This record gives sequence, structure tokens and C-alpha cells, in this order.
Amino acid sequence: MELSSTQTHLLINTGMSFVGFMCLINIIPKFKDMFVAANLYGIDMSKPGRAKIPEAQGVVCGAVFLIIMFLFIPFPFYKHLAVNNHSTKFPHNEYIEYIAALLSICCMIFLGFADDVLNLKWRHKLWLPTMASLPLLMVYFVNFDSTSIIVPLPLRSYLGHDINLGVLYYVYMGMLAVFCTNAINILAGINGLECGQAVIIALSVLLYNILEMSGIYHQAHVFSAYFIIPFLAVSLALLYYNWYPSQVFVGDTFCYFSGMTFAVVAILGHFSKTMLLFFIPQVINFVYSVPQLFRFVPCPRHRLPSYDSKTDKLKMSMTVMKMSSLNPLGQVIIWLMRTLGVLYVEEKGETFSCNNMTLINLVLKFMGPLHERSLCVVLMFIQVMCSCVAFFIRYQLAKVFYGD
Amino acid sequence: MELSSTQTHLLINTGMSFVGFMCLINIIPKFKDMFVAANLYGIDMSKPGRAKIPEAQGVVCGAVFLIIMFLFIPFPFYKHLAVNNHSTKFPHNEYIEYIAALLSICCMIFLGFADDVLNLKWRHKLWLPTMASLPLLMVYFVNFDSTSIIVPLPLRSYLGHDINLGVLYYVYMGMLAVFCTNAINILAGINGLECGQAVIIALSVLLYNILEMSGIYHQAHVFSAYFIIPFLAVSLALLYYNWYPSQVFVGDTFCYFSGMTFAVVAILGHFSKTMLLFFIPQVINFVYSVPQLFRFVPCPRHRLPSYDSKTDKLKMSMTVMKMSSLNPLGQVIIWLMRTLGVLYVEEKGETFSCNNMTLINLVLKFMGPLHERSLCVVLMFIQVMCSCVAFFIRYQLAKVFYGD
Repeated sequence: MELSSTQTHLLINTGMSFVGFMCLINIIPKFKDMFVAANLYGIDMSKPGRAKIPEAQGVVCGAVFLIIMFLFIPFPFYKHLAVNNHSTKFPHNEYIEYIAALLSICCMIFLGFADDVLNLKWRHKLWLPTMASLPLLMVYFVNFDSTSIIVPLPLRSYLGHDINLGVLYYVYMGMLAVFCTNAINILAGINGLECGQAVIIALSVLLYNILEMSGIYHQAHVFSAYFIIPFLAVSLALLYYNWYPSQVFVGDTFCYFSGMTFAVVAILGHFSKTMLLFFIPQVINFVYSVPQLFRFVPCPRHRLPSYDSKTDKLKMSMTVMKMSSLNPLGQVIIWLMRTLGVLYVEEKGETFSCNNMTLINLVLKFMGPLHERSLCVVLMFIQVMCSCVAFFIRYQLAKVFYGD
Repeated sequence: MELSSTQTHLLINTGMSFVGFMCLINIIPKFKDMFVAANLYGIDMSKPGRAKIPEAQGVVCGAVFLIIMFLFIPFPFYKHLAVNNHSTKFPHNEYIEYIAALLSICCMIFLGFADDVLNLKWRHKLWLPTMASLPLLMVYFVNFDSTSIIVPLPLRSYLGHDINLGVLYYVYMGMLAVFCTNAINILAGINGLECGQAVIIALSVLLYNILEMSGIYHQAHVFSAYFIIPFLAVSLALLYYNWYPSQVFVGDTFCYFSGMTFAVVAILGHFSKTMLLFFIPQVINFVYSVPQLFRFVPCPRHRLPSYDSKTDKLKMSMTVMKMSSLNPLGQVIIWLMRTLGVLYVEEKGETFSCNNMTLINLVLKFMGPLHERSLCVVLMFIQVMCSCVAFFIRYQLAKVFYGD
């Protein structure tokens, strides 16, 4: 059996990713002291000891990812580069997608690292990713500029077959970049979670790419796979050291890096809706967090579950407040969430306390105190189940709404 | 008089650069505490006090530079982007130069910042810039792939009119990136010097671009100017705070950022030889430093001039050694440099001491102790004079060697 050129390139990409994985397994421990010496360390709040754990290791991953991509890029273009082949025109429009994608990712790694080092303000975190996605959106504009969306069947009699969103589509894509980078960052805080969810999302994306590679958008899904395989390799290496008990922390750098990588492949691979389906747990976590994030109810600085050193388990963290100090909207939210059974509330005279609104605490509400590793496994399981739901929606439910 | 589209774009570029300059003047002081809190500060060795001066401010400059460029890029391509103009083909090959150039620069800012935070090893500093220039070299390859150099007249009877260097030319360009990024980094250490030399080199490049804009390589020099004007703006803002007495330090970030910017415009603007002419003081400094850099003679950790608090002046810093401990090569070098009058030597019985081999100390050898600001002004004056020499070589001497 002979391999097609795409298969050969995918094999080369996988081989280089494996080398990158082995390098990271080797160098992450060596960089530890350098990070601690640079004051880039955190204390694990859910452990009895107070060891200094190096932070921001996503930066090492990100650097290795960039190097893999820089070395890999010539391969897909090799046949156009060969000296005796100046007759075929070099596909600038394809090459530019790689370069623009890497520029956006590189900007985000840089921004994430700056955030880990300098603790940037929220306003920087929101508009800098938008800036970083500008070159990418311009590439999308000149290469595709397809801003129409297909209208679902039930609505077609009102809206027609498709709607051209025009500039709104670009706003949507810009917001996708901001959403992806922040979504992973707020479902975080226990050993292995940031990295684990990124690995599962990446595996889902890769599976989707493989399923779609034989379809009409072949090129877009090959492009996506070229980015996702190296990303998976560096994330797995990081997960190896970040798994319970963590020897390193991933930092904002990794969350930004992974978020932007997902946004980039979704935008240039034309599957932003499917990508959002892979983010269901992150969306649930975000929606559940809204009352605290937007301060309808009080929000403490940290919302991590609290560690019980006697049982070595994590339990829900709680916030104490007075019902009378809440505004009407806050009171309605508390009542509603309690009625729906998604909020644990303890009343004590005038004050009452409820669990902090994160998916992690919600899991602990339903399952009771859990060991940190088990909690992470449960959350990973939820992520996998949601990916299954995503594939079901994409391949079965979509038929109902969009036809075959 | 009507402006051509290039002139309009240059004006827009200048306007945006001015806005960037004003922003930086405004935000650099506001970021100070954030950097000191992140342990990114240095102590000024040549001042009586021991104030904490924020380091690595090149990162703020670099970020503003990237934002200016991201926002500016659509303008030169506007006429191709207009909706009613899908007839003219979008010039992907030009757009890709911008994106690849920014990718290389962004990588270097990231690397420089990582170096400031983590204190990277020498081996990382040498091969990471090479990696960062790979996408750029590939763009050069597909857009131009001109690897021939014109042979100077006196050698033509032996070598012919031109030589095709082939892959060696790419090695040369890769080394140019490494040279530029490190050249500014080793002519450093007194208030205003890194930034001041970058400003003078940038002004020289800009003048050269303007002179050549009417020539046959019009497009290449316009491209260069689009990068150099914003670079000049952010460097001037940084110089304002870095000038004696420094309120901020520029860090490796700035040296890497400026070096890569110069390398990028030289490579894609096809004037790498002229660019090297603007680096004459840096080349002299490097050559003069070789005996210490390569350890033919002992090299202390710091080679900065030493501060005399009584006179508030800087004087040569010295290294003490035994003649008998030097290897023969080291002895010959010391003898030769002393004979040429470019080394100050003090003998004391068996040991002797000589000034550290940097251009800064060489200036102090000839001019005696100087106030720090005066020393910087003298070095800036040397840089300006060397730029004049560069222009003379480029426009007069080149005629002798290459004909009209």
C-alpha cells in the first residue's frame, strides 16, 4: 500500500510531535529550578506540605510546539519548493494560513507568559486576545470571506436558506478567540484539570478531523490535524508532570496557548460550531459561574474546593452572605438555583452560606467530598461524555435541523 | 499636490506610530510597580542610591509595536480588500512578508522576555533566534530565492560577475538574525545606550529607505519603512525613560526585539550588507571583545565601567591576571593590543591588570573618566559618525568596487 502525500505528511508530523513529547518529558524537570529561582512558583493549596511548585510551565510546552511547527512547515510545501519544479505556482494562500495561525498562537503564549509573570489586569486579558486574532481574521477575509450561515430547517420559512452575517461573523470569530482562551482558564485549580481537559478536547478535535478528512473540506481538516497533533503531544507531556500529585503547574500560559490553538483551527478549519460543542463543560461552568463572575452574588478571591487534611479529600468551598445584603436579582438567582437543586445552601440565623459556583464545586455537591485525583477523573469523565454528546449532536441531531 | 497611495500609507503609519509613542509615554510609568512586584528590577550600579529600577521594559514597547502593526496592516492592502474590487487578485506574496516578519519579531520579543525572567543559558540564546527566523527564510525562499551576490570589480577576472551562494546565503541570513540580536545586547550597560544606539540605527535605516524609495527596489524600502517608523516611535518613548538617570531598564527583551526588527527588514528589504554597515560600532565592540568572550584572556562576570562616587564619574573597569597564567595566544593578544595602543595595562610585580575589552572601556581609556551621561553622548556620537561612514561607503566607495 502506498501512502498519499497527505498521509506521509501526517506521519512526519506525528513523528516530530513524538520527538517533541520526549524532549519535553526530558526538559521539564530540568527547567524547574530556573522557574522557582525566577519567583515563578505556586503553593499547592490542596496538599499538606507547602512545597514550591514551578508555575507557568505552559511556556516550555508552547516554545516546543512552535519549534515543531517551524520545522514541520516546509514539508507540506516541499513539492512546490523543489528546485526543478518552479512551474507549479507556490500556494501562498495556504502558506499564509500557517504563518498567521502561528503568529496568533505565538502572541497568546507571549501574552499568557506576561500574565503569569506580571499579573495583568482583566481589561488587558480581554482585548489583547482580540488584537492577536486580527492577522488571522484578515487571512480568513482574503482567503474565504464566507460570512453566511446556513439557517436550520424549522426557521427557513422565515429567514430563507442562509443569512449573510457580514461583519458580525468577524465579531463572532474574534469573540471565539476570547472565549476559548478564557474558558479553560476558569475551569481550573485542581491537579491535572487544565491539561486534562485540553487533551480531551484535542483528542475530540483530532477524531473529528480524521472523520471529515475524506469529505469535501479535506484540506481544512488536514490543516487542523497538523496543528492538533503537536499540540496533543506537548499537552500530554505536560499532563504527565501536572497529574496528581503535580510536580509542575501549567499557568495561564498554557490556558491561553491551548485556547488560541483551538480557536485558530476552528476558524481556519471552518468548524467553529463543532468546536463550541467540544466546550460544553466549559460553557456549563461559565454559565453556572455568571452570578458570581458578574457579582450578582458575592464572589471570593479564590473559589477552589477546600482541602480537608484529616481525610485528604476536597469538599465544596462556601461563601457566607446575608440574604438582606443581596439585591433582588441576587435573591432570585439564589432561590432559583436552590429550587433547581444545583446550589447547596446552609442557613445560620441571619446569614447563610452557599457553595461557590463552579463546575468543580457542583460535582462535589452531588458526589460528596472526593480525593483530588478522583475529582479530576470525574471531571475528565464528564468532558469525555460531553464530547460524545457533541458528536451525537454534530452527526445525528444536525440532520434533523439542517437536512442531510 | 495629491499624495500617492504609498505616501498616504506612510502618513497613516507615522500617525499610528505617534499615537503609540504617546501611549507608551503614558503607560510605562504605570507599569513600573507591576514589574518591581514581579521581581523584574535591577539596581543601577553606577548611581550612589540603591533604588529598584524596573527591568525588561522592552516588553511593553514590543507589545505596543505589535499592536500598531496589527492595526496598520490592513491599510496597504485596503484597495484589494474593498468589496467591489474582487477583480484584482489579492497579493498574498506581499501580505505573507508582513505576517512572517511579525511572527519572527513576536518570537524574539517572547524569547527576550523569557530570558529576562528566567535567565536562559547561552545555548538557548544562540539557536532559538535561528528557529525564529525559519518562517522568514522560507518566505524569502518562495518570494525571491535570489542567492547570488555581485562580485566586486577587482575580483571579477577571477570569480566572474556574480556567485551563487545557494544554501550558504540562507545560513548567512540566519546568522544575520543571531548577530543583530546579540550585537546590541553586548554593547550595553550604561543608561540610555541600548536604546540610543537602536534609535540611531533606525534613523539611519529610515534615511536609507527614503533615499532608495525612488529607485528600482521601491517596494522593499516602503516595506522596511512601515516597520522602522513604528519601531522608532516605541524606541524613542523608551529612550525618554531610559536616558540618564534611567527610570527604567530596557532588558534583553528590547535588545532582541530591536535586533530582530533590523534583521527582518534587512532580509526582506534586500539590504543586509548596508544594514551591517550601520552596525560598525557593534562590530568593533564585538571584535575588540573576542579575546575575553572566547576566554583567550580572563573575563569577569561584569565588564561595566566602574563608578567613582566621589567624582560621580565612570572609569575603566580592570581585570587582574598573571602573565604566566596566560596561554601563548593570550600573551600575544595582550602584547599586540598594547603595542597598537588599544589596551591600558598596569603592571604590579608578578601580576598586571588591563581594562576590560569593551568599546565603552576603550572610550574611557582615550578620554579619561567621564560622567555617565557624557559617556553615552560620546558613544552616540561615534554611532552617528559610523552611520556617516556607512553612507559614504554605500554611495561612494561602492561605485569603485561595483561600478555605477
